[in-house]
Amino acid sequence: MKFSTSVPLSQLAQLTASRVMGDGSLLVTGINEIHKVESGDLTFVDHPKYYDKALQSAATFIIINKEVDVPPGKALLYSNDPFTAYNTIVRKYRTFEPSKSALSETAKIGEGTIIQPGAFVGQHVVIGKNCLIHSNVSIYDHTIIGDDVIIHANTVIGADAFYFKRRPEGYDKMISCGRVIIHNKVEIGACCTIDKGVSGDTIIGEGSKMDNMVHIGHDTVVGKNCLFAGQVGIAGVVTIEDDVILWGQVGVQKDLTIGKGAVVLGKSGVPKSLEGGKTYFGSPTQEAREKMKELAFIKQLPSIIEKLKS
Amino acid sequence: MKFSTSVPLSQLAQLTASRVMGDGSLLVTGINEIHKVESGDLTFVDHPKYYDKALQSAATFIIINKEVDVPPGKALLYSNDPFTAYNTIVRKYRTFEPSKSALSETAKIGEGTIIQPGAFVGQHVVIGKNCLIHSNVSIYDHTIIGDDVIIHANTVIGADAFYFKRRPEGYDKMISCGRVIIHNKVEIGACCTIDKGVSGDTIIGEGSKMDNMVHIGHDTVVGKNCLFAGQVGIAGVVTIEDDVILWGQVGVQKDLTIGKGAVVLGKSGVPKSLEGGKTYFGSPTQEAREKMKELAFIKQLPSIIEKLKS
Amino acid sequence: MKFSTSVPLSQLAQLTASRVMGDGSLLVTGINEIHKVESGDLTFVDHPKYYDKALQSAATFIIINKEVDVPPGKALLYSNDPFTAYNTIVRKYRTFEPSKSALSETAKIGEGTIIQPGAFVGQHVVIGKNCLIHSNVSIYDHTIIGDDVIIHANTVIGADAFYFKRRPEGYDKMISCGRVIIHNKVEIGACCTIDKGVSGDTIIGEGSKMDNMVHIGHDTVVGKNCLFAGQVGIAGVVTIEDDVILWGQVGVQKDLTIGKGAVVLGKSGVPKSLEGGKTYFGSPTQEAREKMKELAFIKQLPSIIEKLKS
Repeated sequence: MKFSTSVPLSQLAQLTASRVMGDGSLLVTGINEIHKVESGDLTFVDHPKYYDKALQSAATFIIINKEVDVPPGKALLYSNDPFTAYNTIVRKYRTFEPSKSALSETAKIGEGTIIQPGAFVGQHVVIGKNCLIHSNVSIYDHTIIGDDVIIHANTVIGADAFYFKRRPEGYDKMISCGRVIIHNKVEIGACCTIDKGVSGDTIIGEGSKMDNMVHIGHDTVVGKNCLFAGQVGIAGVVTIEDDVILWGQVGVQKDLTIGKGAVVLGKSGVPKSLEGGKTYFGSPTQEAREKMKELAFIKQLPSIIEKLKS
Repeated sequence: MKFSTSVPLSQLAQLTASRVMGDGSLLVTGINEIHKVESGDLTFVDHPKYYDKALQSAATFIIINKEVDVPPGKALLYSNDPFTAYNTIVRKYRTFEPSKSALSETAKIGEGTIIQPGAFVGQHVVIGKNCLIHSNVSIYDHTIIGDDVIIHANTVIGADAFYFKRRPEGYDKMISCGRVIIHNKVEIGACCTIDKGVSGDTIIGEGSKMDNMVHIGHDTVVGKNCLFAGQVGIAGVVTIEDDVILWGQVGVQKDLTIGKGAVVLGKSGVPKSLEGGKTYFGSPTQEAREKMKELAFIKQLPSIIEKLKS
Repeated sequence: MKFSTSVPLSQLAQLTASRVMGDGSLLVTGINEIHKVESGDLTFVDHPKYYDKALQSAATFIIINKEVDVPPGKALLYSNDPFTAYNTIVRKYRTFEPSKSALSETAKIGEGTIIQPGAFVGQHVVIGKNCLIHSNVSIYDHTIIGDDVIIHANTVIGADAFYFKRRPEGYDKMISCGRVIIHNKVEIGACCTIDKGVSGDTIIGEGSKMDNMVHIGHDTVVGKNCLFAGQVGIAGVVTIEDDVILWGQVGVQKDLTIGKGAVVLGKSGVPKSLEGGKTYFGSPTQEAREKMKELAFIKQLPSIIEKLKS
C-alpha cells in the first residue's frame, strides 16, 4: 500500500512507540509486507531467520527487533514487537469505513454497468464500463474492476488475507491493506472468493474465466486467458501464468508458480511449481502420462504378490 | 430454448447476416446447442469433426460454415462464424432484463411460500407453494421451482453455464438461454450453485436433498431422491439417476451417467460413467471393495521390496 | 433444545397422539436426539438396533415404537412413528418465525459491532461487542456470537443440519432445533457455512480462524485456536480439539475426533479419529511420514516389475 502523501519516518516512530535508527526525516512512501516491498516502502521483520532478507530487500525502511547496523540508503525503526508496530501503521492509514448503503458513497461505477439487487459495493471501489454485477455479490473496499467484467451472484471480492502470526496466547491477525484488481473481460462464477493482498494486490488477468466456488488467496497473480473450473482453490502468493487451465476441485499450495499453458486435471493437488505447456494429474501432481502409468503399475500389484509367493 | 412464437428461417438469416440454403420460409420453433436439439430447433456447427453429427441430428435447422447438401426435411444457414450467429439469435430472443427490486416484478410466487430478507428472485421466475427461500439466496431469471422446496441461505440458482469457445484472441462466451427446473420436495443447502442449461434445462428431481456448497453444472439432470453431501461438485451435462448418494467432496466429470442407486464415497473423483447399485471410491473411482484391496496391497510394498533384495 | 418452561409428558402424548407408559405427570425439560441427551430430556428411538441405547441413555423420556418395560426413573411414549412424533414436538416448540427485515426485531447486537449492508440477522440472535459482520452474511435464528468476532461476506451461520430418515417414499427431514455458538475472537472467512445442531449446539472455540469456503456440519465442536484453510469440509458430530490445523480442501468424516495439535495436510481425507500432536496426509489419511514413504515405494514399482521379469 502506498500512502496518499509521504510520511516522515519519525512520525511513524512516534505512532508506534519505536525508536529511529538512522535519518528520521526521510519520507516513507508506503508500507508492505516482505513479499511486496519496493523502494520507499516500510516493512517489518521480527525473526532472526529473516533479518538479512529484510535488511537486503528493496524496502528503504525496516521495523526490526534487533540492534543492527543501518544499511546504506536505509533507515530503521527499533521495536520490541515489529508485527504490532506494522499493524498499527496499517490501521492508521487504511481505516475501515463502515458503509451505510449497499452502494457506498465513495464507489465509482462506469457507464453501462449493471448492479443487480443486493450486491454490495464497498468504499473507494472502482468498477469500469459495461460490467454485470449479479445479485448479492460483495465487493470489499478499494477493489478495482475493469471493463466488460461479469461477476456472478454471491461472489466475494476482496475479503481479508488469511494471514496470522501465532503467539503463545493465540493467533494475531495481520491487517490486510492490499487490494484486488480485476482486468477487462474477466468472468467470475457464483460463490467465488478472491481475497485482497496483505499489502499488495491480488490480480486477475484480462480475459480469464472462473466457474463457481473458485477460491483465490491473497497476493496471487493470475495471468491472461486462464480457465479455472468449479471448486478450484488457489492459496496465497501464487503466480499463475497465461493460458493455464485448472479443472474441477484442483488445489494449489501457496508461494509457487504454474507455467504458461499448463493444464492440471481434476482433483489434483499442486504442492510445488509446475513447468508450463504440460498436463498434470494427482495429489501430489505428476505429469499426467506418468501418473497414468503409475496407476496401471499399481493394478499389477496382485499378480506381483502372487509371483513372489511362488 | 423455445421461441414464444415461431420465426421464419429467413428472418434469422437477416439477423445474423447469413445465407439460407433450402427453404427460408420454414418456421423455427427454438434454438438449442447440439446436446439438446429437438425437431423444429435451430442449432449450429463450426468444426468439420461435428458436421455429420449436426446434419444428422434432430435439429431441423443448422447454422454451418461449409457448403453442403441440404438434408431432406431440413434447411441450413451458411455463416462464416456459426458460433457468433447462434449467440446473436440467443441474445435477441432472451434479452437480459435488469431487476429493479429484489423480488422482480415478473416473478410468480406461490401461496404459503416464505421469502426471507435479502433473497433475490429474478425476472419470470416461478416458485410453487409452501417453499422456504432463505436470506440472500439468488435466483436468476426464468428459473422454475416446484412446491415444498427449501433453499438455504446464499445459494445461487441459475447462474450462466461455464461454456466458452477458445479463439486466438481469448475465450468467447456461449450465451446461456436455458433454465433450472427444481421439482417438488427438493432441499438445497447453503452456498450451493446450480447453473442454468446452455440452451436446455438443468433439472433436480423430486425429493433430492443437497448439503451445503454443492455445485451442479449446466444441463445436468439429477433424478429423484438423490442425496449429495457437502462440497460435492458435478460438472455439466451429467445424468444422475434416482437414489444416487454422493458423499462429501466427490467430484464428477462432465458428460457421463451415474446409475440408479450408486453410492460414491467421500473425496472420490468420477471420470467416467458408473453402473448403478454399487459402491465406489477413489480418484479415479473404482468399486470400493477393489480400491480397499488395492490400498492393502500398497501397504505390502515395503515387504515386497525387502524380499526382492534378498 | 431446552423448553422455555417444562412440559408434562402427558401433554406431549396428546400433541403427538402417542400413549404414555409410566408417569405422565413427570415434567419434560427439553428434547434432544440421541447424541445430545441429558437428564430431563425427551428423545426417540424407532429401530430395534438402538432400543437398548436409548433406554439406557441419560434421557428421562423416550418415544418408542415397542412395548417395553419402563426403566426406573424414566417414562415412555408409545408411538407407531417416533420420528414423526419427535418432529411434531420440535415444530411446536421451535416455530420458524419469518423475518420482516434484515435485522430481525428480536435480535440483540452488542456495542461497537458493525453490521455491513445486506447482512441478515435472524430472530433471537445474540451478537456480542466489537464484532464485524460483513455484507450479505446470513445468520439464522437463535445463533449466539461472542465478542470480537469477524465474519466475512456471504457466510452462512446456522443453516439446518443435513439429516434425513430414508422412508420407502423418500427422505423425511429431521427438523433442526439446535444452535450455533461462536466464541470470542473467532474469525470466519467468506462463503463459509456452519450448520446448527440437530438438537444441540455446533460450537466454534475461542480464537479459532477459518479461511474462505469452510463447511462445518451440525453438532460439530471445534476447540480453541484452530486454523482451517480454504475449502475444508467437516461433517457432523465431529470433535476437533484445540490447536488443530487443517490445510486446504481437507475433508473430515462424521462422528470422529481429531486430537489436540494435530496437523492434516492439504487435500487429505480423514475417515477415522486421529491422535493429537502428529501430522497426517492422504485419503484415507496416514501419518505424513509414512504416506511419503509409501509414495516413494510406489515410484519403485517399474523397477520391481522389471526385476520380476528377469
